[in-house]
Amino acid sequence: MNGLIETLRQAVGANHVLVDGDLSAWEQDWRKRARGKALAVVRPGTTEEVAQVVRACAAAATPIVPQGGNTGMVVGSTPDDSGRAVVLNLTRMNRVRAVDAANLTITVDAGCVLQTVQEAAEAAGYLFPLSLAAEGSCTIGGNLATNAGGTQVVRYGNARELCLGLEVVTAQGEVWDGLSGLRKDNTGYDLRDLFIGSEGTLGVITAATMKLYPLPRATLTAWAAVPSMDAALALLGLAHRHLGAGLTGFEVMGQFALGLVVKHMPQLRVPFQQESAWCVLLENADQESEEHARAQFERLLEAALEDGCATDAVVAENIAQARALWHVRENIPLAQAEEGLNIKHDISIPVSRIPDFCAETDALLKREIAGVRLVNFGHLGDGNLHYNVQAPEEDDMQAFLREHEERVNALVFDQVRKFGGSISAEHGIGTLKVGKLPHYKSPVALKMMRAVKDALDPQGIMNPGKVLLP
Amino acid sequence: MNGLIETLRQAVGANHVLVDGDLSAWEQDWRKRARGKALAVVRPGTTEEVAQVVRACAAAATPIVPQGGNTGMVVGSTPDDSGRAVVLNLTRMNRVRAVDAANLTITVDAGCVLQTVQEAAEAAGYLFPLSLAAEGSCTIGGNLATNAGGTQVVRYGNARELCLGLEVVTAQGEVWDGLSGLRKDNTGYDLRDLFIGSEGTLGVITAATMKLYPLPRATLTAWAAVPSMDAALALLGLAHRHLGAGLTGFEVMGQFALGLVVKHMPQLRVPFQQESAWCVLLENADQESEEHARAQFERLLEAALEDGCATDAVVAENIAQARALWHVRENIPLAQAEEGLNIKHDISIPVSRIPDFCAETDALLKREIAGVRLVNFGHLGDGNLHYNVQAPEEDDMQAFLREHEERVNALVFDQVRKFGGSISAEHGIGTLKVGKLPHYKSPVALKMMRAVKDALDPQGIMNPGKVLLP
Repeated sequence: MNGLIETLRQAVGANHVLVDGDLSAWEQDWRKRARGKALAVVRPGTTEEVAQVVRACAAAATPIVPQGGNTGMVVGSTPDDSGRAVVLNLTRMNRVRAVDAANLTITVDAGCVLQTVQEAAEAAGYLFPLSLAAEGSCTIGGNLATNAGGTQVVRYGNARELCLGLEVVTAQGEVWDGLSGLRKDNTGYDLRDLFIGSEGTLGVITAATMKLYPLPRATLTAWAAVPSMDAALALLGLAHRHLGAGLTGFEVMGQFALGLVVKHMPQLRVPFQQESAWCVLLENADQESEEHARAQFERLLEAALEDGCATDAVVAENIAQARALWHVRENIPLAQAEEGLNIKHDISIPVSRIPDFCAETDALLKREIAGVRLVNFGHLGDGNLHYNVQAPEEDDMQAFLREHEERVNALVFDQVRKFGGSISAEHGIGTLKVGKLPHYKSPVALKMMRAVKDALDPQGIMNPGKVLLP
Repeated sequence: MNGLIETLRQAVGANHVLVDGDLSAWEQDWRKRARGKALAVVRPGTTEEVAQVVRACAAAATPIVPQGGNTGMVVGSTPDDSGRAVVLNLTRMNRVRAVDAANLTITVDAGCVLQTVQEAAEAAGYLFPLSLAAEGSCTIGGNLATNAGGTQVVRYGNARELCLGLEVVTAQGEVWDGLSGLRKDNTGYDLRDLFIGSEGTLGVITAATMKLYPLPRATLTAWAAVPSMDAALALLGLAHRHLGAGLTGFEVMGQFALGLVVKHMPQLRVPFQQESAWCVLLENADQESEEHARAQFERLLEAALEDGCATDAVVAENIAQARALWHVRENIPLAQAEEGLNIKHDISIPVSRIPDFCAETDALLKREIAGVRLVNFGHLGDGNLHYNVQAPEEDDMQAFLREHEERVNALVFDQVRKFGGSISAEHGIGTLKVGKLPHYKSPVALKMMRAVKDALDPQGIMNPGKVLLP
């Protein structure tokens, strides 16, 4: 192994091969669910250096764990505890390579922090719409490797839909320059979308060309009280019709979830929490003017009140009010944490089936565990719920998790399967769900995934143990 | 082989296995560029029948050529002349399986004609935006197998971006039910996008779940005279800023291309043809009202006239006028054909580089062939040009093609490569470009494509000779 370390030092410089000291920033996932042990942490500065690292590891049959900001939710970017794997951290590769305004594209190194990409786009007068909680530290390479979602998917899609081209170092250490800025290219298989979402198990994304959009002239936020999940769906349908592509956000939040915010963040104002089973946050981005956006919003909300799918509604008067509403939404996970441990699920269901899914699954859980509390919120516009299960008020949290976690997961995931959903909407598989996948994914699909993995990474050195069991 | 035919008859019914008589509708591509010979034409009625056919062919190591409406442009859905291949025609599978309004999805058999899908969506009050010349006879399965483009890509993307899930019969004759109506699903590799655009070389698409959109309240068409390709690009940028996602079409047409319409279709009125080097057709789809769409269009065109990126412009007053403008655009290929044979290219270039590409390539061609005429038009919003080369006026067409076709293709494709473009923007590879691909595609990408092909179709029975050389 000393030979490999020496080769890696020559490839990227001795300073950028870490073997001693506290490596926990790279060896542990940020939710501190798992702590692994790396043979070394290697921090290349260029694509060619990445290729050299991969070739050296391939020659030594040494596993490689690609890593960006290490903010993933499913333990997908940290090594196992064998001490055999090299962590390939890309954060030194953080250049914005080019902004092409007329082509509406930006080309960036994989290690660029998401917020840096957003800011570079905005400085050029454009919007890069991918937006999520970790944007200050996650990297675009990690976003692509996990096909990240976030809050604007209802309009702009996931990371995959925002990407036009990739540069990738293959498992053999070859560089594929697929950095296309083309919106149409039908010259063979879609390798780009194969690498996107593969969580570093097929190769290493080293750069990407992403789509830009004109900056909206105005972005407004509204908050509506809705009496039921059926009503929330009716409001979503109305919003699609009234706002078209102006609808950039549609978040639903259950009364109990908002109650936790009221309880633990008393400084935050939560409209309509007491009187309504659900609240919805809507965002409308407009190319025309604030006046136009406001008029559109008012027409929509009037129609919703008339239809009865909303019982009350308010449009933020200014940016501070809009931020305050988003702040409530974004603080639900923190308020949950204040309340104690819970069992989290990042699921998706066809939008039309969400009311039935919730009614049935809520009832099953309440029958199973007396007093259980459901923290339900999410991106309803995309059918994505963070459907979390909190212990009964008086319970010991640790005991609750020990006793119920497996059973609750099985119950929720079985329901997800029954309703045609996905057990991982936006977080991916990593190691956290890799054991569950065979129970919930089509065996035919799994067989094809395995065939593709073996074809592109026959040595099995790319992020082993993630996505697919060895 | 009689054993196989008998098995196929048992699988799909003797009536649906064609071996005698005139099979040219299935053996010949519609542009009549190639005539093959099939062992049989098999027309299954269900997914399970498709699976039985594939299993029977796999057992006999018999090649399978999946076929929809057989309207492709690159000889991708007809058999070679060996008489060994089974044509698997899916047009009997033409059910609309479900419209899910709240989920904004439609699920259809692969053999559904595109227009049927559009009509089913509209009958339910929704828009299915894929639209192209062959929509009256092409099938959605073929659209997906070739990742079809068309006239609304600037807003809605290609067929790939409109698809949420697939049902596929694998090369082993297994059924993969990936008919997801989910907008977020991060549970492994993107097999859907791998089959989309693979032209039947990895498996057979038997059904798909596609996205729907709210019907726009108004769709308006405008026509602008622009002095140069640079000006056309500036107008495109303005249109993105003013209309946002309302911009659903942006077509550019060169003066000579429009001149052919004037010459051969004198009944059509072609605005600004005489005085302008280029014309642009713009479409604006609005969720609000015709009045609003018109006001938006007028603001945009005023700004364009002021900037000088348009020298004249007109907005269609009614649907008949709008249709007439589209009619001009759509008649360019026919007018071209009236003028005589020409050398066609379906290319894409990053939008920002199109002016330089055209200036340089035009000049090279004119230097190479005195008097050559360039018929240039296309979907500028997507960087997709139909860059066609017509013989000098006095030349014999057949002699021109014989003498120049290879050289012109090489010159144009070399330029495409130089400008970072694609030699097939929306038509695919088929057999027509399969020999060219190795010269213009990254060898690393080709190696990965080959590895994927061998992994999913190890026998090499799925549409052999298309996309990848054997």
